[in-house]
Amino acid sequence: MKQASNIWKHYAVGVCYYPEQWPETLWAQDLARMQKAGIGTVRVGEFAWVLLEPKEGEYHFDLFDRFLDLCAKVGMQVIFGTPTATPPAWLTEAYPEVLNARPDGILLRHGARRHYNYNAPAYQRLCAAIVEQLGRHYGQHPAIVGWQIDNELNCETDEFYSAADDAAFRRFLQAQYGSLQALNDAWGTVVWSQCYTDWSQIYTPRPVLNGGHNPGLLLDYRRFVSDSCIRFAGMQADILRRYVKPGDFLTTNGLFFLDNHRLMDRALDVYTYDSYPDFALELDKARDELLDRKWSKNLTETRSVCPHFGIMEQQSGAGGWVNRMEMPSPRPGQLRLWAMQSVAHGADFVSFFRWRTAPFGTELYWHGILDYDNRDNRKLREVEAFGRDLAAMDEVCGADFVASFALVKDYDNEFDCRADRWHDRIARHSEREIILAAQLSHTPYDVLYLRDETDPEALAKYPVLLYPHPMIMTERRAALLEAYVAQGGILIVGCRAGFKDIHGRAPMLVQPGLLRKLTGTEVEEFTYVNQLEGEQRYLPVFHDVLTPLAGTQVLARFEQGYYAGKPCLTQRQTGKGMTLHLGSAFSREMVTRLLAYAGVLEPFDGDLSAPEEVELVCRETNGARYYIALNYPDRPASLTLRRPMQNLLTGQTEEGDLTLPPFGVAVWKAE
Amino acid sequence: MKQASNIWKHYAVGVCYYPEQWPETLWAQDLARMQKAGIGTVRVGEFAWVLLEPKEGEYHFDLFDRFLDLCAKVGMQVIFGTPTATPPAWLTEAYPEVLNARPDGILLRHGARRHYNYNAPAYQRLCAAIVEQLGRHYGQHPAIVGWQIDNELNCETDEFYSAADDAAFRRFLQAQYGSLQALNDAWGTVVWSQCYTDWSQIYTPRPVLNGGHNPGLLLDYRRFVSDSCIRFAGMQADILRRYVKPGDFLTTNGLFFLDNHRLMDRALDVYTYDSYPDFALELDKARDELLDRKWSKNLTETRSVCPHFGIMEQQSGAGGWVNRMEMPSPRPGQLRLWAMQSVAHGADFVSFFRWRTAPFGTELYWHGILDYDNRDNRKLREVEAFGRDLAAMDEVCGADFVASFALVKDYDNEFDCRADRWHDRIARHSEREIILAAQLSHTPYDVLYLRDETDPEALAKYPVLLYPHPMIMTERRAALLEAYVAQGGILIVGCRAGFKDIHGRAPMLVQPGLLRKLTGTEVEEFTYVNQLEGEQRYLPVFHDVLTPLAGTQVLARFEQGYYAGKPCLTQRQTGKGMTLHLGSAFSREMVTRLLAYAGVLEPFDGDLSAPEEVELVCRETNGARYYIALNYPDRPASLTLRRPMQNLLTGQTEEGDLTLPPFGVAVWKAE
Amino acid sequence: MKQASNIWKHYAVGVCYYPEQWPETLWAQDLARMQKAGIGTVRVGEFAWVLLEPKEGEYHFDLFDRFLDLCAKVGMQVIFGTPTATPPAWLTEAYPEVLNARPDGILLRHGARRHYNYNAPAYQRLCAAIVEQLGRHYGQHPAIVGWQIDNELNCETDEFYSAADDAAFRRFLQAQYGSLQALNDAWGTVVWSQCYTDWSQIYTPRPVLNGGHNPGLLLDYRRFVSDSCIRFAGMQADILRRYVKPGDFLTTNGLFFLDNHRLMDRALDVYTYDSYPDFALELDKARDELLDRKWSKNLTETRSVCPHFGIMEQQSGAGGWVNRMEMPSPRPGQLRLWAMQSVAHGADFVSFFRWRTAPFGTELYWHGILDYDNRDNRKLREVEAFGRDLAAMDEVCGADFVASFALVKDYDNEFDCRADRWHDRIARHSEREIILAAQLSHTPYDVLYLRDETDPEALAKYPVLLYPHPMIMTERRAALLEAYVAQGGILIVGCRAGFKDIHGRAPMLVQPGLLRKLTGTEVEEFTYVNQLEGEQRYLPVFHDVLTPLAGTQVLARFEQGYYAGKPCLTQRQTGKGMTLHLGSAFSREMVTRLLAYAGVLEPFDGDLSAPEEVELVCRETNGARYYIALNYPDRPASLTLRRPMQNLLTGQTEEGDLTLPPFGVAVWKAE
Repeated sequence: MKQASNIWKHYAVGVCYYPEQWPETLWAQDLARMQKAGIGTVRVGEFAWVLLEPKEGEYHFDLFDRFLDLCAKVGMQVIFGTPTATPPAWLTEAYPEVLNARPDGILLRHGARRHYNYNAPAYQRLCAAIVEQLGRHYGQHPAIVGWQIDNELNCETDEFYSAADDAAFRRFLQAQYGSLQALNDAWGTVVWSQCYTDWSQIYTPRPVLNGGHNPGLLLDYRRFVSDSCIRFAGMQADILRRYVKPGDFLTTNGLFFLDNHRLMDRALDVYTYDSYPDFALELDKARDELLDRKWSKNLTETRSVCPHFGIMEQQSGAGGWVNRMEMPSPRPGQLRLWAMQSVAHGADFVSFFRWRTAPFGTELYWHGILDYDNRDNRKLREVEAFGRDLAAMDEVCGADFVASFALVKDYDNEFDCRADRWHDRIARHSEREIILAAQLSHTPYDVLYLRDETDPEALAKYPVLLYPHPMIMTERRAALLEAYVAQGGILIVGCRAGFKDIHGRAPMLVQPGLLRKLTGTEVEEFTYVNQLEGEQRYLPVFHDVLTPLAGTQVLARFEQGYYAGKPCLTQRQTGKGMTLHLGSAFSREMVTRLLAYAGVLEPFDGDLSAPEEVELVCRETNGARYYIALNYPDRPASLTLRRPMQNLLTGQTEEGDLTLPPFGVAVWKAE
Repeated sequence: MKQASNIWKHYAVGVCYYPEQWPETLWAQDLARMQKAGIGTVRVGEFAWVLLEPKEGEYHFDLFDRFLDLCAKVGMQVIFGTPTATPPAWLTEAYPEVLNARPDGILLRHGARRHYNYNAPAYQRLCAAIVEQLGRHYGQHPAIVGWQIDNELNCETDEFYSAADDAAFRRFLQAQYGSLQALNDAWGTVVWSQCYTDWSQIYTPRPVLNGGHNPGLLLDYRRFVSDSCIRFAGMQADILRRYVKPGDFLTTNGLFFLDNHRLMDRALDVYTYDSYPDFALELDKARDELLDRKWSKNLTETRSVCPHFGIMEQQSGAGGWVNRMEMPSPRPGQLRLWAMQSVAHGADFVSFFRWRTAPFGTELYWHGILDYDNRDNRKLREVEAFGRDLAAMDEVCGADFVASFALVKDYDNEFDCRADRWHDRIARHSEREIILAAQLSHTPYDVLYLRDETDPEALAKYPVLLYPHPMIMTERRAALLEAYVAQGGILIVGCRAGFKDIHGRAPMLVQPGLLRKLTGTEVEEFTYVNQLEGEQRYLPVFHDVLTPLAGTQVLARFEQGYYAGKPCLTQRQTGKGMTLHLGSAFSREMVTRLLAYAGVLEPFDGDLSAPEEVELVCRETNGARYYIALNYPDRPASLTLRRPMQNLLTGQTEEGDLTLPPFGVAVWKAE
Repeated sequence: MKQASNIWKHYAVGVCYYPEQWPETLWAQDLARMQKAGIGTVRVGEFAWVLLEPKEGEYHFDLFDRFLDLCAKVGMQVIFGTPTATPPAWLTEAYPEVLNARPDGILLRHGARRHYNYNAPAYQRLCAAIVEQLGRHYGQHPAIVGWQIDNELNCETDEFYSAADDAAFRRFLQAQYGSLQALNDAWGTVVWSQCYTDWSQIYTPRPVLNGGHNPGLLLDYRRFVSDSCIRFAGMQADILRRYVKPGDFLTTNGLFFLDNHRLMDRALDVYTYDSYPDFALELDKARDELLDRKWSKNLTETRSVCPHFGIMEQQSGAGGWVNRMEMPSPRPGQLRLWAMQSVAHGADFVSFFRWRTAPFGTELYWHGILDYDNRDNRKLREVEAFGRDLAAMDEVCGADFVASFALVKDYDNEFDCRADRWHDRIARHSEREIILAAQLSHTPYDVLYLRDETDPEALAKYPVLLYPHPMIMTERRAALLEAYVAQGGILIVGCRAGFKDIHGRAPMLVQPGLLRKLTGTEVEEFTYVNQLEGEQRYLPVFHDVLTPLAGTQVLARFEQGYYAGKPCLTQRQTGKGMTLHLGSAFSREMVTRLLAYAGVLEPFDGDLSAPEEVELVCRETNGARYYIALNYPDRPASLTLRRPMQNLLTGQTEEGDLTLPPFGVAVWKAE
C-alpha cells in the first residue's frame, strides 16, 4: 500500500466556496471574513463546468481567473475541483449516451447531479478535455495548493446500467476471465441454464423476475463499478499530473462504495473525507445507538485508506435538500465537537461546507457557516474558536492513532454483501455490534483491509485481529493470517468463515474451509437463528455448530435448541498465537468479553476513565501520548484523570475528577 | 376577483345519472322516482364520448336526444358534462401523443380515466370539435340549465410528463421569462452546473437521481400545470359560450390542485364541489382527528373560490373502486348530515352521486342512492327527507357565512409546498392544527387567497388574518398586509415567514424579510425541532428564534433548548392594528390562545353552546342570523340555546338544554 | 373430471438431482448413497436447455446419455423434466419477443428464470423442437419412468404483458365473445367511455392511472393467463405422448395460480406438488397462526386436483436465494414431519429437493439433503428413516382421505379475487378462518371445485358444503347446489353470495340473486364493517343484513350498530336438506359453531383425541381406518386413544394416554 505522506505539517482550516453563486462585489469581503475566522484555504470549481465551458470546446476562465488572482493577492490558498460530477445540459443533450440509466434502461437525466456514467467514450473524451484545459490554465497558478478530482465519486448512486456500461462490463470480464468457459465456471451459470455462449449476451443487471440475478455476476458487477470509477479518476489524475506544480496534491472527497484503497494508490496523493454527522439526527429517520458518534466509524475507514487525511467538507450547519433530508441545526458546540471528532481520528485539514448557505437550488437547506442573511453568527464564531483550538494542539498534528485491535476487512467480502443478503445480514449485524462494543468500552481500533499488496507487517502491528465473517477466503489471505497467528497474534473469526471462494461459490470443503487449520474446528451444522426461538442476545443471527478437532479447546457451548451443549466458541494455538472461533454473529456483549479475554479491552484505563457516552481517542508521537475526549450528548460528563496531564486547549494541568460540558472536547498531553 | 353571482335563488336537489348505462325502458321510471324524491336536476354526459362520437368526426346524438326530450317532457332539468375526461380507445390509438406519461416517458394508457394531457394539439382539436358539436346541438335545448366542463380536472393525477407537455412547458417559460438568462437566474441553475443554454434543453421533471430536481423548476412546473388546465377549460368555455342559452351556467366539478380562483375567473359562472366525506372512514386508512368533519375544510376552500356554490357530487353511498378504496356504507342519518354540511358551508345546490350504483366497471363499489337491486331503500328516503329539510330552511339560501377570521393563503406558497418538503412539513402541520382549533372551539373561518386581483377591502372584512407561513413573500402582498394592519387588523404569522422570493429563492435579507417592518422582529436562528428533544406540544416542528426590534413587545419565550429565554412570540403595533409573530409552527393549543388573545374565539357563545364534536355554523342575511349545528359522531350531543330560537326544520321554538341525535342536524333562526 | 389413476402402487421416495452441476466422477457415488438411503427415483433435466441445445438446432445428449445409462445400470428410475422454464441466453438474444414484460413494456430479461411468455410463436416453435428431440431420444430409455413438463408453471410470476400476450389475449377474447359488442357488454365498457371499436384497441393491462382497470378485463385476463399456460403445457404433452413408453407418466410440479384442474385434464397423468413448509419460518416474515401446518391447505388443494398425487420437491433443508428468502434449517424431525404431512394428505411419492445444495447460483442457499461439504449428515439419516417409515405403513398407500365437509370453490371466483379487492378481502379472511377452525378442531375437509364437468355425485359425497362467498354465481351452479340440498345436503354460504354474474357484473337482482331460492333470504343492506365500530370478532369484515322470506328460520341476529336485531344467520329447508346463510365473512368461532350445528365437528372424537396443535388425518381403505397424527410444535403433545390401535411405524399396539415427541408422527391402524 502506498502510505500517504503527511500533506499537512500543521493543522489547517478551510471552507468550500462558490464564487460563481455570488455577486463579485462580495468576494473580497468574504475572503477577508474567512481569514479573520482563521480560514486559509478555499475549495472551488467542482460544480462549475457550464461556466467554464458553456459550449463544447469554448472555454471561459475569466470568472475563476479573477477569483484566483484575488486569492493570490490576499494570500488565500485554493483547492480546485474538476467539474466532472455535473455535465452541463448542452453536453447531455448532445451526447445522451453519457447518461447513467436505471436497470430498465430509462436514462437518468440532467437536473440533479452525478447523472453520468464512467464508461461512455464521449464522456471520457469531454472530461479529459476540460481537465486538460484546467490543468494547463491553472496548474501553475500561485494560489493553487491542490486539486480535487470530480466530487464524491459514487455518491448519489453506485449503480450504472447504461449501454456504455454494458460494453465496458464485457471488456472487464474478458480481461478477467479470458474465456467464456472460465466465466461460466466462475458464476455457476450451469444452474438455470444461464450459460453464456457469446460475450454479447452479457449485460449489467437488467430487470429479471424477483431480482434473482446470478450472484457471481453481481459480485463481479461490484468489482466492475469500482474499477470503472478508479479508471475514470485515474484518467483525470494522469492529465493533472502533467500540469500541477511540485507540492500541490491530488485528492478526491467523500468515501463511497468502491475499492478506495486502489483509488488512492492509482490516482491520489491524499484522501479527504466529507463528514456530516448531522445525518444521525435527520427527521423521520430510525436512530442508530451511536448517533453522531457513529461518524467515528467512517473516519476510521478513512484512516485505513490514508492515515493522515483531510476533511474536504465538514458539516457546519443543518443539512437538507428541498425534496428529502431534514436535519436540525447543530447546537452550540456541536460544530466544534464534530470537527474535533475528525481531528481526533486523523484529519490534519478541516474544510467546512460551506461558507454561506446557497440561496437557491436543490441544496437550499444545506446550511453553511453563514446563513442566508450573511450576518456574523454563532457558527462563524465557533469556526474561529475551533481554529484557535487547533493552533493550541498543533503538536498532535501527524501523531499516530493508538489502536487496541484491527477490524479486518477485504473488498471481496464487502462487495459480496451487496450480492448476497444472507452475507449482508450477518456481516451488518456483527459490524454494528463490534463498533458499539469498541466505542462504549473505550477500546479504539483500526480497520485493516486485506489486499493483494498487504504484507505480514501490516498485520503484526496489532495484537488482535477481529475478522468477523470472512465468508470469501483465499489461499493467500489464509496464509497471511497463519503467519500472523504464528508470530503471536490473536485472530478472532465468527460464523460462516471460509465458506466461499473468490467467485462467491461454496467449495466442497468442510467449513471453515481454508481456515480449518487455524481454527481447529469443523462446522457440523449451520442455521439462521429463527426469531421464534426467543432472544438470542449473546449469539445472534446465525449459528455454526462447531466440532473441535484434536487439540482445540472449547471455551463455550450453545445453551438452547437442538444443538445445546455443542461448542459455540473454541480456541486453537498455532505457533505463538491463537485463533478464537465463534460459531455465531457477534453481539456487543460477546465482543466485549472476547476483547477482554484477548487482553486489549480498555487500554487507557490506567491513565483516565470516562463514561460510556464519551469517546476517548489516543494519539502518540515522539514518546508523548495525547488523549482526546469527545462528549456527544447534550449533558455534562464526569471523567477522572488518574495522573496529572496538561490540557492543551486551556493550557492548564488537570488531575482527578473533572467535568466535560455538553458537546465538550478536551485534549490532554500525557508524557 | 369575479364574485360569483348566486345561481340558485332557492335550494335545489339533483342527482348524477348515466342514461347510457341503463335500458331505455328504465328512464321514465327513474325520472319519476327522482321527482317523487324531490330531485329536479340531473347531470349527464360527462363520460359518454365514445357514444357521442364512436368514430372520429361521426357524431351520434340520438341516445341523448331521446333522454333530454324525455327530461324536457317531464320537467327534469339537465346539466350536461363535456365528455373530455375520457377519450375513447379509437382516439388514443390514433393519436397516442394525447396520452399523459410517467416521468420516465412510459405512456399512461386507455383503460381507466383522465389518461390525456392538456397540451397535445391533437387533443385540443378533438375536444374543441366535440364540445362545439355538443354546444351547437344542445345549447338551446329546453331541458338544459347548465354545463359542466370535463370532469374533475386534475383528479387522478396533477402531474403531466408527455412530450406535448415538455413543449408547452418551454412555451410557458419563454412567455414568463423572455430570456434564458432570466430563467437561469430565477432558478439558480448556477448550482450544480445546471444552466440552460438552449430552450430545448428544458423538460418537465424527468427521472433524476434521488429526485433532486431544481426547486425553481418544480415551482414553475406546478404553475405550468395549473395554467395548462385553465387554458384547456377556458378553450371549452369559449366554445360553449357561443351556444348556451341566456341564464344557463358553466361550471366544473371537484376541487383539485390548481389555481381554482383563476379557473373560476377564466371559464366558469359557478363552482361545484364533489363532497365525499366517507373517504374519512376508508378501511386501512390512517384516521384524521376530524374524520368526516374534515370535509368542512374542503367546503371552506370551495367557498373561497365561490361564496355560493353547488355540490355536483354529494356522497350517497359507500365509495370504492374494485382495486382500491374500501368504504363502509353511510349509516342512517349520515347521508343527510353530509349533505347538510355542504349546505351549511354555502352550497345552494346539492346533486347526489349517483342515482343507482353502476353494475359494472371500475366504480362497481361506488354506491349510489339506489343499490344494484333497484329497490326503494333508506338512502332514497333520506334524500327525500333532505329535500324537505331544504324547503323548510329555504330562507337561508344565499345568506352570508359568518367567519371570525380568515386563514390566508396564496398559490405561490401552495405550489411551493409540492416543490419543497421542508415547506410542506411545516405548512401541513400548522394547517391541520389551525383547522382543528377553529373547529373544536366553534370559531368559524374563511380562507382568503391573496391574488394579483386581491384588494384591501377583501382583507378588511376580517378582524384577524392568520397567514401561517408565508414563506414566499412579495412587495405587493407585504403592502396589502401593511394596509390591513394599519386600518386596525390583527395579523398573525408563524415561522419562516418572508424567507423566500417569488421564485423560491432565499434573498439576502434578515428574516422575516419583507415582513420585518410589520413584525418588528429579526430571526436570529432557526432550526427543525429535533424529535429527540422531547415533546414540542406548544411550539412544534420548526423554531425561529426572534429578536425584537425597538418597540416590539415580547409575549412569550422559549422554555427549552439552547435558546431558552429567547422570544418565541411577539406583538408589534402598526397604525391601528398589530402583528403577532410566532417563531414556530402552530399547535392547536397555541392557535386557540392566539384567537382568544385576538378576541375572536367562540363568537357565538352568547347565543348557544355546543360540545367540541358538534360543528356550529352561522349564516346571516337581512339582519337574521341562522345557526346550523351538525353532530358528526354516532352518539347524542347536548347543546344549550341561551335564548329562544326557531328550529326551521321542525318549526318549533326552542331554548335551553336540548339534545341532537347521532348524526343529527338542526337549523335555528335567531332574529 | 378425469380421476387420476393411482400411479404409485407402493410408496416411493425420490430426489432432485442435477448431474450437470457436478463432476461426473461423483455420479456413481451419489447414486449409490441415494440407494442406500432408500431413494429409487431421480428427477433431472428441467434446467438444462443450454446443455442440451447450446446453439439453435444443435442438440447434445451425451451428458444425459451417460447419466441415464448409469441410472439404468444401477436401477435408478428417472423422471425427465422438459427444460422450457429457462430458455438459454442465445435464444432470448435471438428472439427477444419470447420474453415476458412488465406492464409498462419493459422486458424481463435472461438472468433468473421463467423469463419467457407462453404465447410467442417463436418460443412455442423452439419449445416444441426441444421437447420433440427429448421425447424421440429418451422416450424409450429404460431408466425413464415419467416426464415433468416445464418447471413450476406460473411460478415467479403469473402476469404476462408481452406483445405476444397482447395478440393472444385478443384471439382469446375473439373466441370467447365473437363480437366486440358482446365484449363491451360483458365488461361494461360503457362506463368511462371505454367501449372498444376495434379488436386492436385491446391489450393486456398496461399502465393506467391509479390502477383503475376495468374489472371485466382483469377477470378475463386471469382466465387468459390460465388458458395460455394450459395450452403451452398441452402442446408439450401432445408431443411427448407420441414418444413415451406405456406406463410412463406425464406430470408437472408445483401448484400455482391457474385452473389446475383443466391443466390436469388437458395434459397430465398425475399431479406432483412442491412442498416447502419452511417458508412459514422465513425471517422478517409475518407469522401465520398455522405456520408450517398451513401447508396442509396446499396439500388439500393438490388433492382436489388429483386425489393420489406425488411430491416432486419436498423440502429437505433451509430455503433461500441470495437476494431474498431466509429460512432456518429444519430441526431434527421436521424434515420427516413435513414429508409425512404430504403423505397424510395423499402423496404416494415423495421426492426431496435436492440431493446436495448448489454450490453456486441464485439458489446457493436452497439447501438440499447434503450440505456443501458432501458429508453424511442428520438430514440424510432422516430421509433414510422416513423411507423405512413409508415401508412400514405401505398398506395406507392409495387409501381414501376421510373428509367431514367440502370447502367449495370455483375458478371464476378465485380469479375474480385478483380483479376485485373487495372480493379478495372478504374471501381471504374467511378462508383463513375456515381452515384454522377445521384444523384446530380436527375436522378434516376436502376442497371441491365446481367446474363445468362437475356432476351432482361429486357433491353428494359430502354431508356439508361450505361455499363461503360465491359472489359470482351461475344458473348451472345454482342448480347443482339445489340438487345437492334437495337430496339431503347442508349448504352454508356467507355474505355477498350471488352478487355477481359470470363477467363480474352485478345483475339487477335482489341478493343473493340466483341463490335466493335456496337461502330463502333477501339482503336488505350491506356494508363493510368499519374498524371504528369495535371488534367484530364473530361477524367480521362485511355484513349483509338479511330479511327472511316466509318459511325461513332466523338462527341469529346482529347485536351491534344500526341494524342490531336484524337477522345475520338463517336456515332454510329445501327437500331433505337445508341452507344456512350467514350475513358476514366467517370467523373461526362461527365456523366451529356452524360445523357443530351441521353435526360434522370432530368426527374422530370417538376413536382418539388430540390437542389443537396436533393435526389428525384419517385415511380409509378396504374397511380399515388409519389415523395419522402430526405434532408440529417443538414440544411433546399428549393424545388419548379411546380403543387399542396398532402403531404401524413401531409395530406396537397402543391405547389410552400417550405422548408424541416434538415434531413427532404416528400412524395407527383402527380396524
